[in-house]
Amino acid sequence: MKKLESEIIERGKVLPGNVLKVGSFLNQQMDVKLLSEMAKSVYERFASKGVTKILTVEASGIALAVLIAEKFGVDAVFAKKTKTANVEGGVYSAECYSYTHKKSNTLIVPQEYILSDDKILIADDFLANGEAIRALRKIVLQAGASLVGVAIGIEKGFQGGGDALRNEGIDVYSLAIVDKMDENGIQFRSKQRLKNPKG
Amino acid sequence: MKKLESEIIERGKVLPGNVLKVGSFLNQQMDVKLLSEMAKSVYERFASKGVTKILTVEASGIALAVLIAEKFGVDAVFAKKTKTANVEGGVYSAECYSYTHKKSNTLIVPQEYILSDDKILIADDFLANGEAIRALRKIVLQAGASLVGVAIGIEKGFQGGGDALRNEGIDVYSLAIVDKMDENGIQFRSKQRLKNPKG
Repeated sequence: MKKLESEIIERGKVLPGNVLKVGSFLNQQMDVKLLSEMAKSVYERFASKGVTKILTVEASGIALAVLIAEKFGVDAVFAKKTKTANVEGGVYSAECYSYTHKKSNTLIVPQEYILSDDKILIADDFLANGEAIRALRKIVLQAGASLVGVAIGIEKGFQGGGDALRNEGIDVYSLAIVDKMDENGIQFRSKQRLKNPKG
Repeated sequence: MKKLESEIIERGKVLPGNVLKVGSFLNQQMDVKLLSEMAKSVYERFASKGVTKILTVEASGIALAVLIAEKFGVDAVFAKKTKTANVEGGVYSAECYSYTHKKSNTLIVPQEYILSDDKILIADDFLANGEAIRALRKIVLQAGASLVGVAIGIEKGFQGGGDALRNEGIDVYSLAIVDKMDENGIQFRSKQRLKNPKG
């Protein structure tokens, strides 16, 4: 998505440790007009797939997931990172290591929120090593639901998580794929490679 | 908002300790159609006030805040509850005690995300004792910005936080106000009392 790529170039910051900081428009501060256009693109990509629910993980995935759910006219669910006092009854859960925060979390979704006949579209703002997406996929499988695909705001292509998932047959749609970034700039994956990620 | 009140009656659960569980449609699982209607009502209420930004707190406030921001065509910002490795530079911050989780958090917003000429509408899914709203208001004041008002999904009126804020002259608009709840049912504040909360 050209507009997202332009905004990343203009407003993103590359920090040490492979961090692409987009907090000023996609994370802690949210450019909701841009997010809404991103959600529309995701809707168009998966409109024919019978999606019944959007699944994401708190907190930064919620904005994009909710806007995608609004386009589809379906509910959204987020996995919590820690078990709170308010969760009752059985839950689906999966371990997830966050490279950003350098710690493991358990992702938790109450069983009543994912049904076996749900067709789930996973959504998240970032995809790097793919740990969060793999944990969410485990939760979808635990529920016996179908995984329609994965919608991502920004994929850090050079970390390989997205291509590994594609090689396993998962339909990963990323609105921008960064193939290289350093203090000199950001290089996006060309459309040719997007269409044929295996080479 | 009648529809929200009906959904609370139908899908909410009253748990011990003054907990109103709405996780199945307003929190961990989000009925985005309902949330979008709630956001529209908030937009209509504050449309003439020149709102430039929506401010909320992670994680459960994000969905409503983003949908409200979409109606206004403005950005949304959420306060983080703990300082992450990715926050750089100066921040505004305020202490906040959560009765649900029985612990204190520091709410943090980078200074660059709230400007002195911003007209801020604070939004959150719940208002009980008003601790989170008071912390967000401190952050707005630290930035020298204006507080237009406060938009709330569900106010637990019997805990008094909303009326205390109204008595201080703050324009608090709650889409549903629960004045009493127990195992026998939920009683909402009448429209008469809504219009004249002091009397």
